[in-house]
Amino acid sequence: MTPAEAATYLEFAHALALTAGEAILPHFRNALAVEDKHNYMGYDPVTVADRAAESVIRAAIKARYPAHGIIGEEHGREPGTSPLTWVIDPIDGTKSFILGHLHWGVLIALHDGTRPVVGVTHQPFVGESFVGSTGGIAQWRRGGATRNLRTRACPRLEDAWVVTTDPRQFASPAQREAFDRVTGRARFLRYGGDCYCYTQLAMGLADVVIESGLQPYDIQALIPLVEAAGGVVTDWQGRSCDQGGDVLACGDPALHRQLLRVLSGARSPTP
Amino acid sequence: MTPAEAATYLEFAHALALTAGEAILPHFRNALAVEDKHNYMGYDPVTVADRAAESVIRAAIKARYPAHGIIGEEHGREPGTSPLTWVIDPIDGTKSFILGHLHWGVLIALHDGTRPVVGVTHQPFVGESFVGSTGGIAQWRRGGATRNLRTRACPRLEDAWVVTTDPRQFASPAQREAFDRVTGRARFLRYGGDCYCYTQLAMGLADVVIESGLQPYDIQALIPLVEAAGGVVTDWQGRSCDQGGDVLACGDPALHRQLLRVLSGARSPTP
Repeated sequence: MTPAEAATYLEFAHALALTAGEAILPHFRNALAVEDKHNYMGYDPVTVADRAAESVIRAAIKARYPAHGIIGEEHGREPGTSPLTWVIDPIDGTKSFILGHLHWGVLIALHDGTRPVVGVTHQPFVGESFVGSTGGIAQWRRGGATRNLRTRACPRLEDAWVVTTDPRQFASPAQREAFDRVTGRARFLRYGGDCYCYTQLAMGLADVVIESGLQPYDIQALIPLVEAAGGVVTDWQGRSCDQGGDVLACGDPALHRQLLRVLSGARSPTP
Repeated sequence: MTPAEAATYLEFAHALALTAGEAILPHFRNALAVEDKHNYMGYDPVTVADRAAESVIRAAIKARYPAHGIIGEEHGREPGTSPLTWVIDPIDGTKSFILGHLHWGVLIALHDGTRPVVGVTHQPFVGESFVGSTGGIAQWRRGGATRNLRTRACPRLEDAWVVTTDPRQFASPAQREAFDRVTGRARFLRYGGDCYCYTQLAMGLADVVIESGLQPYDIQALIPLVEAAGGVVTDWQGRSCDQGGDVLACGDPALHRQLLRVLSGARSPTP
């Protein structure tokens, strides 16, 4: 895919995310409007919002790119006749969403059969988006404002700010041990980010994201963003993480190489 | 203090928070604008923003209420000749702020010598505020929009959504054990909220906040909000928590009574 093609798909994905956000917003924090919050007859705001947003996104993709495949959390997989597949998570960070917190977003990725080439994260309540493509675009957008994103240099783990959504996602003893090896030597560890872990890495304000148990739609939209901003995203063995699982993202490629050694249990060289 | 007096102070505090937010915003996520992010000569955006905002707040209080005392994180205590004291935390959630995350806010409280009677939380990047007073006001505000806040009923711990900023704040074994007793039986536990733990409790979207090691300025602005919305905020022994320390907030007073027994190690009655 040429950079120009990627840029065209990126603008389509961004417009989709804005539209999906409009479908979601009426359901955000709306338990306020429900009189008896423990008796709303099975009404589940996040499920309703998820489904509404995914339907909007699927309809728009089918209208514009009928040959493309679609994979979504709510409505499953619809294969296309093209190698291009849209991978969507209408609300990443559903627990944040349910709590009325702010670290959630609409994730839309385009996968070319080999890797995700376009990714958009959009938070409709805040009104900000983070968009990236293999064409070299890595941008923050809000209203008419735009900033190009760039990860920061951080070659040493001892200087690194590490972010992850929840330490309890590291389910096995081996995963917990690996997580502890990374975070025990880091300068700083923060919980609770969901997609904002990766956007802030791309912004140059965090150095490492380490996660586990992700689905493909949890991570694909964030890969082009982090990579176009100068970072590296792989699984814990350094392979593609576009199918989810254990994820390691670093703003500084040198730190990523070091952490792959740390995760594998090897002693890392003295810097 | 009459409800009308409290309402007047609340509007003053809200205006102050908006002004302080303007002083903070230029420093939020602004490492983007710094070329070499590891060589900015000791420039610390959160400290600069904290000090700028606190200076703005102190100047405005002295101009309008010269007899009042002021306690702030950055510039310490200035006693007044009145029993009324303003208690300010220009940026609650500094680690969120540094990461460019969204769960932080300007906290401004007014203490009448006995308890905090007015509290404002303002997130200037998002543009939303949560205001409360002993006069019975508990409101969310954004732009011209306003919603009255109300906690939700949740008498059973097994149904409760528990939020806390970081499990590592429970420093002693006894604290960790108490935290585990509460969260082990809860329906759900979420990390990473800072002041948004309490605002979402007031909004009726979370049921329990449990924290430890707080400063007076971390909690005072949130007490009138939660109380006016129908909740209860105390320390882990059920006493006033306006001086900080271990804090337990519940949206449902019945759950708060139950959790005080859980925290004290007593077996709680079968519901």
